[in-house]
Amino acid sequence: MLTYILDKKKGSPLYLQLYDCIRKDILQGRIEGGERLPSKRSLAEHLGISKISVEAAYAQLLSEGYIISRERSGYFAVSLEQLPEAFEKAEGIEAAKEAASEPGAEDADQAPDASKPGSTIPSAELFPFSVWTRLMRSVILDNPDMILERVPAGGQPELKRAIASQIYRERGMKISPEQIIIGAGNEYFYSLLVQYLGRDRTFAIENPLHRKIDRIYSLSGAGLAAIEMDEQGMRVDGLEESGASVAHITPSHHYPTGIVMPITRRREILRWLSEDPDRYLIEDEYDSEFSSAGRPVPSMQSLDSSGRVIFMNSFSKTISPAFRISYMVLPYGLLSSWQERMGFYSCAVPSFDQLTLARFISDGYYERHLRRMKKHYRQLRQELAEELQSPEFEGKLELRQSDSGLHFLLGFKGGRDCSGEALRTGLKRCGLELPLLSDYYVGKIPAHADRFCIVQYSDISPAALLQGLRLFFDL
Amino acid sequence: MLTYILDKKKGSPLYLQLYDCIRKDILQGRIEGGERLPSKRSLAEHLGISKISVEAAYAQLLSEGYIISRERSGYFAVSLEQLPEAFEKAEGIEAAKEAASEPGAEDADQAPDASKPGSTIPSAELFPFSVWTRLMRSVILDNPDMILERVPAGGQPELKRAIASQIYRERGMKISPEQIIIGAGNEYFYSLLVQYLGRDRTFAIENPLHRKIDRIYSLSGAGLAAIEMDEQGMRVDGLEESGASVAHITPSHHYPTGIVMPITRRREILRWLSEDPDRYLIEDEYDSEFSSAGRPVPSMQSLDSSGRVIFMNSFSKTISPAFRISYMVLPYGLLSSWQERMGFYSCAVPSFDQLTLARFISDGYYERHLRRMKKHYRQLRQELAEELQSPEFEGKLELRQSDSGLHFLLGFKGGRDCSGEALRTGLKRCGLELPLLSDYYVGKIPAHADRFCIVQYSDISPAALLQGLRLFFDL
Repeated sequence: MLTYILDKKKGSPLYLQLYDCIRKDILQGRIEGGERLPSKRSLAEHLGISKISVEAAYAQLLSEGYIISRERSGYFAVSLEQLPEAFEKAEGIEAAKEAASEPGAEDADQAPDASKPGSTIPSAELFPFSVWTRLMRSVILDNPDMILERVPAGGQPELKRAIASQIYRERGMKISPEQIIIGAGNEYFYSLLVQYLGRDRTFAIENPLHRKIDRIYSLSGAGLAAIEMDEQGMRVDGLEESGASVAHITPSHHYPTGIVMPITRRREILRWLSEDPDRYLIEDEYDSEFSSAGRPVPSMQSLDSSGRVIFMNSFSKTISPAFRISYMVLPYGLLSSWQERMGFYSCAVPSFDQLTLARFISDGYYERHLRRMKKHYRQLRQELAEELQSPEFEGKLELRQSDSGLHFLLGFKGGRDCSGEALRTGLKRCGLELPLLSDYYVGKIPAHADRFCIVQYSDISPAALLQGLRLFFDL
Repeated sequence: MLTYILDKKKGSPLYLQLYDCIRKDILQGRIEGGERLPSKRSLAEHLGISKISVEAAYAQLLSEGYIISRERSGYFAVSLEQLPEAFEKAEGIEAAKEAASEPGAEDADQAPDASKPGSTIPSAELFPFSVWTRLMRSVILDNPDMILERVPAGGQPELKRAIASQIYRERGMKISPEQIIIGAGNEYFYSLLVQYLGRDRTFAIENPLHRKIDRIYSLSGAGLAAIEMDEQGMRVDGLEESGASVAHITPSHHYPTGIVMPITRRREILRWLSEDPDRYLIEDEYDSEFSSAGRPVPSMQSLDSSGRVIFMNSFSKTISPAFRISYMVLPYGLLSSWQERMGFYSCAVPSFDQLTLARFISDGYYERHLRRMKKHYRQLRQELAEELQSPEFEGKLELRQSDSGLHFLLGFKGGRDCSGEALRTGLKRCGLELPLLSDYYVGKIPAHADRFCIVQYSDISPAALLQGLRLFFDL
């Protein structure tokens, strides 16, 4: 049995320490390729830690490609030549080969890099256009009829299967393809969920929040209760007092605060859920792929035993916001009533896009792309954080939640000019259009929220940000 | 000035007679290519007919490609080599050339014809896959960034411009691209319209109707009034009595009855609209491209002077139901309030599909495809109608509304077995799953509705239909 000394008092969480130990052992050959890892339960007992910590460590190793899982047999280390490290090296060669074999079509890959080095959309430089074009062509050649036939309600089975196995590999979530509903973006689902659950209910939302959420719920006619957050996420006392029967939360990475809900709070909210059979939880992920870097927390859907968590995620952040594909995972108990009441809706996503994405995922390109994106954003984040914490900005700026996700909070220290509308217009004059944290509150706004901006660093050029800030501070 | 003898008492309407005369003159060279046609007003006065008749004739000539329109200069005959007849001949050669030049990619065009001759999706055989693939590739090569950037609210400007000029050519509707909102299917718009207009209103819907319409409105929380129809469409007295402030109608080709609303009824409904500034009309087209064959009636949007007609149409029928792109045309007066209240929604259609469709339209492929589809469906309809009206089925079947659109009504004459559930199960036993007209009524069902089936001949193989019917009647 693997034996590691893990330290609860250390800065990093137990599962991260475990993940690090196992990863090193695999990299250094102490755990051989193909070797079976101990079961989660036995390893947890052996190390004297919780099964959840082991689960989280395994999920992270899985998502990063160090181990694989085989149904009903457990987890196995991958061989040295299949390790992510080896893979990343080889990728350069592979891409070049691909480009050479189909010259006409594969040029696309080169175009963006060469012509637009300063694009503010990093994904346009990272996205494997050549692969995508090739997959599109093969979808057309293989299924001309399928592309034109009516889309099955809820989405193309091929895509549902691909997503089910992808979220298992990535998050360890065990779901069946039939639980998946494909839709045109998470916001598309919000309206549908009000129609399905009923607008006589009160929906509890996080405060602050992405303002699209409350706008869509309120346009859809649902009652709303904006619940205060603390440093762990939505407050459970607030949720209980609100009388809401639906809670909509973004536990994996809250926008705009960047809070990742710890497992304790997740369990508290699930307890609230289980107390009344008429309560529902909407678990809304939107950039969990990036938030989980090094800190995997199990999804609420997989922790839940009530069968009333509706999970949703989208490909907007991992592929592109212009690519309107999201999915919802319904609990088994809701499948038949969903089918009965909502099954008449046409699937809002073109078949062609669904089938291409299905291949992109099942042929392994999606995971590769994700790894590349994660690496890119991690670098970008670290570089930006270093610059913003350099002596140049000392006493002027404060960084929060800059260790994960696709955005962080940038606090301004100083007088009147560093707060509220003065801050906004001052930044605008310096070429920076940044939203304030206070823009995201419903009702009362805490004092500090007027001094923080949201930096969506996936959408902004670091050079432009730094230049604007220097101008703002007269540096 | 062109002079023709038109006869009001003749079977065909005046504008159709005029269209025939002008078309013949162009084909036989009596009107030369490039020659300017008289203005609508002056021709109407000259011939002693209404301006609307001339408008309709010109619109039909325009939509079929016999004349073109130049902004602020009027209508001109096209030259002989640009006539649809010449075009259709040349098309065969062009397609062959295309296929030869890019062998790998263009094979797709051949595949469906060869491998699936009996496909029930005629569009799969007619759809120009090779062209589509080529356009997709060029979209990727030209705009890699654009595909991944956030879609502009309301849709890609390129597609809006293409649609605006397409509906002008096809229907003579003069609208500006900024009036267009792109969405993922007409049903997607129904919910948005309830959110925008408000669910405190009563929406008047046609009865019978496509049951998705009332289901979505009612799930969205709007009040509903199902208004009886007569042979001209929604009854105006019923509409007035309902107290509804929004009327949702499908004037160009009603499903399931197939009724095309004549201009007199259109004007009556527009009068209802103009009587109260808080009334709105939703003009929902879904297969107008096929219904207008030989009978163009101006859209209500273009007849309206109140500025409160919201027009919508989709590409589901002309391209494919799996291709979820629709558009809505908002009157100018609603643009700013729409932007303010609904502009925060992301456009639900992937950019890539929008940009490809934009080129498909603006490069002329869409019109060509439409012509091919129209011809195909016209033939299919005529052949089926002949078979069903042959002596074999005499006294057994009655055809209604089989002169246009993509479906018709098939009435069964006979005893108990030819009505209601007995009819449905009897047909099912013979391999025919056809909906009954009575399925589409809200509330009271007229007696005859149980004896009529809807034949969506775009979705069924004629051979299977005839075989099933012979079996049903023991022929």
